[in-house]
Amino acid sequence: MAEPLLFYFDFSSPYSYLASERIDALAERFGRRVQWRPVLLGAIAKSLGTVTLTSQPGQAEYSIRDFARSARFLGIPYAHPATFPISTVAAARAYYWLHGQDCAKARQFAHEVFRAYFVAGKDVSAAPAVLELAAKVGAGGTVLEAGMNDAAIKERLRAETEAALAAGVFGVPWIVVDGEPFWGADRLPQVERWLASQGF
Amino acid sequence: MAEPLLFYFDFSSPYSYLASERIDALAERFGRRVQWRPVLLGAIAKSLGTVTLTSQPGQAEYSIRDFARSARFLGIPYAHPATFPISTVAAARAYYWLHGQDCAKARQFAHEVFRAYFVAGKDVSAAPAVLELAAKVGAGGTVLEAGMNDAAIKERLRAETEAALAAGVFGVPWIVVDGEPFWGADRLPQVERWLASQGF
Repeated sequence: MAEPLLFYFDFSSPYSYLASERIDALAERFGRRVQWRPVLLGAIAKSLGTVTLTSQPGQAEYSIRDFARSARFLGIPYAHPATFPISTVAAARAYYWLHGQDCAKARQFAHEVFRAYFVAGKDVSAAPAVLELAAKVGAGGTVLEAGMNDAAIKERLRAETEAALAAGVFGVPWIVVDGEPFWGADRLPQVERWLASQGF
Repeated sequence: MAEPLLFYFDFSSPYSYLASERIDALAERFGRRVQWRPVLLGAIAKSLGTVTLTSQPGQAEYSIRDFARSARFLGIPYAHPATFPISTVAAARAYYWLHGQDCAKARQFAHEVFRAYFVAGKDVSAAPAVLELAAKVGAGGTVLEAGMNDAAIKERLRAETEAALAAGVFGVPWIVVDGEPFWGADRLPQVERWLASQGF
């Protein structure tokens, strides 16, 4: 059985959302699965001392245009959120807690979070919004709320972000195929060829 | 007659080199021409206060891997130069001088500069190297050498870089199709669809 692809993302990253809508089906065409790993891009940037795309002078306007255009190019619905970026700590903690209970539900939940933020324009940063989205996939309630505040889950998100950093991740989406790293939703065609040709 | 595409680039930019190998043929498939405009990315970054890709902590190693992989993906020869990045003032001034004499030769010269640097690994920053490359396309000699030092040519490069900044250019390659800006060689598929569909 071939190794799963790794998919590092942040729920507040538009290009992560675009990749999230394509990565599983792409991998499946080659009989592969994908491990989803939400991380905190802000913590990674702070730790490395890097500057994120939209915070660079002059780049915000182009970026917002490119998010929407890239979505249209891929045939994915997109509406740039009024509040952007947002904190994704609550959503990421909820993801890891759900993942410990039921992998498939965690995946569904991740889609719900991305779509609520990048299609419906809902601010998904606060715990109540996150709990509502978890409820939509039949998970959550007070158990999830407790789980999100559990020390082990907080540590898990910190550890996943640290591990991503240690693996060389400096931006998201970050996709790893058999050790080969790809940064950006615009690298999906390269990921596809890599899977088809086992490298190129 | 449709407007020509604009192609802003820096001779020291790997993704500009990749775009330079495809942009003319791509435009021609839609009956369009391309205006090539070398600019100084360093001056643009300094003016905006932005940080360039490879100078971001942790990103150099990935970038060098991605330059070569993106070249293989597109079927374009590439060898990362030992000296990188380099000053491209001399090459850009020579380009504008040649362009004033013979557009076609200026285009050929630009290809020679890119390929000397990104395929043959030649440091093309100094005037003698630039003059040698101009000689390969049957241009140059002492007239070009004088032209490169001409106040009007120096001013032309400064003005083109300023105009790019004023047009919103913050990175290269930067391609404009009927007013729509595209940043990066990885946006060539979007450029193609934009030309095919007159927007999307």
